[in-house]
Parts: sequence; structure tokens; C-alpha cells
Amino acid sequence: MALAIIAPGRNVAVWVENIKKIDPSITVYVYPEIIDKSEVEAVMLWQHPKGILNDFPNLKLICSMGAGVDHILSDESISPELPIARIVDKKLTFSMTNYVIMGILNYHRQTLRYQINQKKKVWDMSRPEISIRVGVLGVGELGGDVIDKLQALNIDVSGYGYSQKSGLTYPYYYGNQINEFLKKVNILVCLLPLTPHTENYLNLDLFKNCSKGTYLINVARGKHLVEEDLIEAIENGYISGALLDVFRNEPLPKNHPFWESEKITITPHIASVTNPDAAAPQIVENYQRMKLNQSPKNQIDRKKGY
Amino acid sequence: MALAIIAPGRNVAVWVENIKKIDPSITVYVYPEIIDKSEVEAVMLWQHPKGILNDFPNLKLICSMGAGVDHILSDESISPELPIARIVDKKLTFSMTNYVIMGILNYHRQTLRYQINQKKKVWDMSRPEISIRVGVLGVGELGGDVIDKLQALNIDVSGYGYSQKSGLTYPYYYGNQINEFLKKVNILVCLLPLTPHTENYLNLDLFKNCSKGTYLINVARGKHLVEEDLIEAIENGYISGALLDVFRNEPLPKNHPFWESEKITITPHIASVTNPDAAAPQIVENYQRMKLNQSPKNQIDRKKGY
Repeated sequence: MALAIIAPGRNVAVWVENIKKIDPSITVYVYPEIIDKSEVEAVMLWQHPKGILNDFPNLKLICSMGAGVDHILSDESISPELPIARIVDKKLTFSMTNYVIMGILNYHRQTLRYQINQKKKVWDMSRPEISIRVGVLGVGELGGDVIDKLQALNIDVSGYGYSQKSGLTYPYYYGNQINEFLKKVNILVCLLPLTPHTENYLNLDLFKNCSKGTYLINVARGKHLVEEDLIEAIENGYISGALLDVFRNEPLPKNHPFWESEKITITPHIASVTNPDAAAPQIVENYQRMKLNQSPKNQIDRKKGY
Repeated sequence: MALAIIAPGRNVAVWVENIKKIDPSITVYVYPEIIDKSEVEAVMLWQHPKGILNDFPNLKLICSMGAGVDHILSDESISPELPIARIVDKKLTFSMTNYVIMGILNYHRQTLRYQINQKKKVWDMSRPEISIRVGVLGVGELGGDVIDKLQALNIDVSGYGYSQKSGLTYPYYYGNQINEFLKKVNILVCLLPLTPHTENYLNLDLFKNCSKGTYLINVARGKHLVEEDLIEAIENGYISGALLDVFRNEPLPKNHPFWESEKITITPHIASVTNPDAAAPQIVENYQRMKLNQSPKNQIDRKKGY
């Protein structure tokens, strides 16, 4: 019985170390150095080569090495019977939330404007705040925490999700209420899971339906955004600016127009970085549950895609 | 009986309008156009000419037009018998808190570093966060709210104040425990009231006792900070950088070195701007209480100075 890590190009030494520290009895292989594939009952995946799991005849569990599972579900060769678990990490949620709040407050308090004024030695006290109404696309673990924290700060916030929900403490819109939601907010935070339904969700049609001058924050996945549509939406004033942490191609190519846009602030996919110290215990626990024929914790719903 | 507004150079039309809307029976004079000074029983002050209150023989109440009263207490000609009230405004607290949190998160998530990297088209994912332990100097209405909100965000925070307090939900230091407090934190937020004791409190001696590379945020009063000492402390690495909203001379003179410092971010005293819509009802209520011989709400303690 063994656990295999398949995360090409990623340094996984600290993951191996953490797993061994918690349960020294687990045999851990690191791709491509896997001696006997039939021995492997669980895999940890990050951007694995498509189709590779067909080589593992005794696989019982798939663990994502991050919060997202889109990199796994996009591999259609994976048996629908195999349970897939994701990482739920408070530190990951903490980082994501404070990054998003930073972006919201910098828009609200016009950090860029005051930086320009400082360079020009201009003292301008007029209009010190932009009034904000935040909308969060995706109200799962991460989106829900952003909403909680914004409420604690007394900032106006609404949520939007795929399906109906009840008992929420904030205004919630779902399904075809998207335009009603967009009209209500002027900061749009994307924390959707990446599924076939949400790929290219942030496109020109959606931007045209936003309140004029809406500010966009995308911290989910690069594929949520049609990047050329954002540039057009900014040129036409539908969107006033954006803070982006994720891109269709990472690292962002040097010739990409986002680097030089004055209205787009970019960061190199650092909003929330999975911490092996917090994630490894979850993987070990799920490995042990698998051995006892129990379903894993934080298992995703294959039909929903998250 | 009349109320006089003495706030030279400030446009107070909206204050007059708000007061008249709430209680049309109040006679409101605006300095310097005060017909009969003996008629005035209450004054609203902002940066008034020192000594001017001696001309008002029937004065019973002084109202600050903001949260601070240092501009009133620095006038030694004012009788110690006269009650002084300040403005307590939730919107003012909201703005102050979200400005401070913005500053803290920009340091934590290294906004300036990523802005420079964007200009250079550098994709650097390493060390995405600086670990932070926030210390708030002054735990009154404003400092206390900053601490509450940081706790809601799960950010490590401690407070420091002049006197002993109990029943607090956060680590609290007072009096001569200042160095113990400074050792514990690496972001220092000044929200002290300005009193003779706290003037020049942020000086080189204090900076030398900070954890090396502490980040400073001053949103209280310009006179808390010895400005040349901050420049020296940054040059020597005691302080790594600062966000300043207040200055000894405002507007900040064009030849002041803060404008061009790469490690100092300045804003033009906009962290929290008193909103006449919220403040006027408090002034009217205190005017009505004065007429009934009741002490005003939000009266300050002249001995403490706040």
C-alpha cells in the first residue's frame, strides 16, 4: 500500500517530510519515480499528466494538493467512481480573505490616486472615499469567509451562487438572478470554482450588465476571465479597473497587455498559497480513512464539479 | 440664546443647514459675523483664534467639530469650568478603521513590492506574505474599534494605553510597559489622543526600542511624530516604512522630504473626515441638554485631555 505524489515541476520535499512526520508507516512515492504502480492506493495531484491514472490499477482515492479540483476534473479519463478530496485550510482561507479585503479597501480609499498625488506633490482632500457595495461570485468556503469578514467590517456585501440557499445572513442571488445581482454591486469579487459552466464566465456580456464602472477582483482561476474582454470593458468604461491574481497562462507572458495597463493591478498568483503544514494532516487523515473503507473528508461532488 | 460656529477658513454652510433642519429654533452665527456675542451660549470650534472665547461672557458649552479636542485644549485662556464635548461618529470610526486595515494589509501583502514587480514585468511568487503582529497605541473609541476589527480578521493584535484596564479580550500594556509592548509587535498604529504627554511620543528613542524594521502608521495627529526622527529611524533600519495621514504642518509643505521618500506613503489627512450629517445631531442634542442644565454627551475629561 502506498501514496503517490504526482505534481510535475513542483518541489514536494516538504510535503513528503510532513506526511512522514505524521505517519511514518505510509510509503510515499514521488512521480516519476514510482516503483510499483499497482501498490499505489491513493494519489496526491497537482497539474498531473492527463490519462496517467489509468496506469494505477488499485487506486481508491484522489487528493488535490490545493483548494481547487479543476485540474483533476479536466482529465476525462478519471473514473467517475473514484472519490476526490480537496484541501480546506484555515490559513489558505485567511490569506485569500485578507488579499480580497486589501483589494476592496484600496479601491474604496483610492490608493492609486493618492500614490499619483504624492508623486506630483498634490495635496487634495476632496472626495476621500468611493462608496462601495461588494458582490461575491461564489459563496463556498472561501467566498463565504470573505462575506463574513466584510460583514464584520460593516461593508455592504451580497453573494451570488449557482443554486438556491436559505438561512444566509446576507442578500443572496442565484441562477438567473445574475443581472439583478450585478446591478446592486460596484465591486465584483470572483471566487467561483472552475467548472465547464463557469469557464469564461467573466466576459464582455457580463461586464456590459455590470453597474457602470464596476471594479473587478479575480482570485479564483485565470480561465474564469476572457482576458481580451476585460481590456475592451475597461476601454468602454463598463469596468473601471481590476485586481488580478490569476491568469490563463502563468507566469503571465512578458508581452501580455496586463503588465502595462494603468487600470489593472496584477500579482503573481500569491493571494493564497497552499501551506503543506496545514494540508499534509488532511491528506494523511484521508489516507487512513481510505484504509478503513470510509469516504474522505472534504470530498467534492463530481456532478457539481466542486 | 445662540450657537456660534468658529472655524476660520472652513466652509460650514452644510453644518448650518443640518442644524437648522433638526431644530429651526436655534439661532446660528458663523464667525466672524457674530452680531451679539453676549447672546452666544454654545460654540462649535475648529482651529479657532486663541483667546477669542474671552469675548463671550455667557458661554456654557464648547463643542469640537471633530473627534479630537487638542485644538481646543491648546488654548490656555479657556476656563476649566466650561464643559467640552467631542463628536463620536460611527461613520468616522468606520473610515478610520478601514483606512488602518488597508495600511496593515498593504504592508502584510507587500503591495509596493508587487507594484514595482509589475512595472518591471517580474513574476516572483516567493515569500508572498510578511508575518504581522499589530500594536495599537491608544485604545479609545477609535483604537478599540481597530482592535475589534483586526480580531475579527484573525490578525494578531495588542493594545497600549496610558492607564490600567481590565476585562479586555486582547493583550494590553500600559504605562511603563511600553518597551515590552514594542518588542511584541512589528506594525505600530498611532491612535493616541494629542495631549502634552503624547506630543512628540513617536520619536527616535521610541523607534530604537521597536522590533527591528517595524512599520509605522500614524492617523492621529501630526504633533505625535517628530518628523526628522522618522527619517533617521528609516535610514537606520529601526523603522522599515510608514503610512502617514497627518503632519505637523498641513498641507504638507512642497519642500518636505516625506513627499519623495520611497518608504513613506502619505495621504492628505483623509483617513477619517467628520461628516456633518452625523455630527450635527450630536451638537443639537448637546445644545438642548445645555438649555436644560444637563451635562453634554461625549464630554471630555479636562484632566486627561480626552
